[in-house]
Amino acid sequence: MQVAMIGDKIVPVEELEPVYFDRGIYFGDGVYEVLRSYDGKIFALEEHLQRFVNNLAAVEIVGVDIDQIRSRVQMAFNTAGISNAKIYFHVTRGSAPRNHICDTNLEPNFFLTVTELPGDREEKNKGIAVSTYPDWRWKRCDIKSLNLLANVLARQDAARKGCAEAILVDEAGLITEGAGSAFFAIFGRTLQTAPLTANILPSITRKFAIQAGKNIGLKVIEKPLTPQQTGCADELFIAVTTKDIVPVVKFDNKIIGDGKPGKYTGLLIQEFRSFTS
Amino acid sequence: MQVAMIGDKIVPVEELEPVYFDRGIYFGDGVYEVLRSYDGKIFALEEHLQRFVNNLAAVEIVGVDIDQIRSRVQMAFNTAGISNAKIYFHVTRGSAPRNHICDTNLEPNFFLTVTELPGDREEKNKGIAVSTYPDWRWKRCDIKSLNLLANVLARQDAARKGCAEAILVDEAGLITEGAGSAFFAIFGRTLQTAPLTANILPSITRKFAIQAGKNIGLKVIEKPLTPQQTGCADELFIAVTTKDIVPVVKFDNKIIGDGKPGKYTGLLIQEFRSFTS
Repeated sequence: MQVAMIGDKIVPVEELEPVYFDRGIYFGDGVYEVLRSYDGKIFALEEHLQRFVNNLAAVEIVGVDIDQIRSRVQMAFNTAGISNAKIYFHVTRGSAPRNHICDTNLEPNFFLTVTELPGDREEKNKGIAVSTYPDWRWKRCDIKSLNLLANVLARQDAARKGCAEAILVDEAGLITEGAGSAFFAIFGRTLQTAPLTANILPSITRKFAIQAGKNIGLKVIEKPLTPQQTGCADELFIAVTTKDIVPVVKFDNKIIGDGKPGKYTGLLIQEFRSFTS
Repeated sequence: MQVAMIGDKIVPVEELEPVYFDRGIYFGDGVYEVLRSYDGKIFALEEHLQRFVNNLAAVEIVGVDIDQIRSRVQMAFNTAGISNAKIYFHVTRGSAPRNHICDTNLEPNFFLTVTELPGDREEKNKGIAVSTYPDWRWKRCDIKSLNLLANVLARQDAARKGCAEAILVDEAGLITEGAGSAFFAIFGRTLQTAPLTANILPSITRKFAIQAGKNIGLKVIEKPLTPQQTGCADELFIAVTTKDIVPVVKFDNKIIGDGKPGKYTGLLIQEFRSFTS
């Protein structure tokens, strides 16, 4: 008899619910999105759905109807009735006994949550500390996949150091991005961030942050930075869906500027509001 | 109200079973082992348990009692009563609402299956074809983690080409290992495989294959190979827990030797039997 064990409970394999056979858990074989709403309105839904379609194609998960996903997101969001909500969803290749190869007709699994976003006023007002960590991630970080152990380890290390985000540094000594965010520096009136070629996610918040930078008259350059160069920056910030722009006031224990959120970062946060309202 | 959606069914978040909050699915935040039995006897259990302990430590999953895992493996194996069984188990950091950072007191989740191994006589008699694929995996492949999407994509590509395994090639053009196996070449009386420093798994079957090589009088060198060099090899094979040694007779469509499993590979398979009986 083929058996499974969940904790210390033995059950026949045939009696296991499909969720225990989800390829998400065996392989991280799926892709995900995180969206948020501002005051009852989902922000950049179409951009997120388009990226999701790209990611499904990149990992060759087929048979997903993006219109159905859009309806589900909207239905769940409406049911939740949360004004400032975080919407997370993933699709995995499906449920099957563990094997790298699977039937191409497997039905993908969809999972979503709509939860209340914690307030970010304090982080925006005071700024956050960040610390560096080796970028151990895979070589396809342009795909928003469920393979996130490197990100977890980086973020755990940051938390132990009292930091809110880990900034990943690749083998060439260059900053790629944060464990869960895009990373920006401001030098004078120049806004700098790593190019999308640097094994980073085509972050939607990054795109809007760049647009915000242009709108307020900053020159934007997409070029990788080293951790040392951040020490000469006037301002630093991260960009992430759930919090848009968050000032960084300490980088590996070094105080940036006067240790307070910078002028342009404040203007960028304001400008970002114009996109979301 | 915070809501979740499983497929098209909306449920309150509070009503979700813990399995839906498993960090294994959100992040691949766990480590695993695969063992097998030969004729009713689990092979190399202690080696696998020791590696598992190392992996738990590497990803900082705490609170796992390895003696309890050993008992569970044995209990499940005894209950199954399968003579040639595949035993898979993983431990994830636990179940919690999705957040990279989690409570360090989270209780880890344990999951195991004991299933019947398919026969490997045909593969051993005829050999298999393999194809190369870029090694997109993360930089800690010494850890046997649940982040296996790169392996899945490689193996899918191989399957489309009619190959049983994908051989991963890193950015320097060197073979690291198979998507789910160690990779070996034989030149004359020399057995060659990548060193453990090459971002590869400290494979237990690899260790026994090397020992078998020494036992039959082969010289062993641990040095990376290029795909081109395999074309000059007399024999190739992969080593994997579930099948021990499997001859490779075709590499990226190039026939190796006379296209049949080689002499030394046959001797290695025989020698391996002495370890498992």
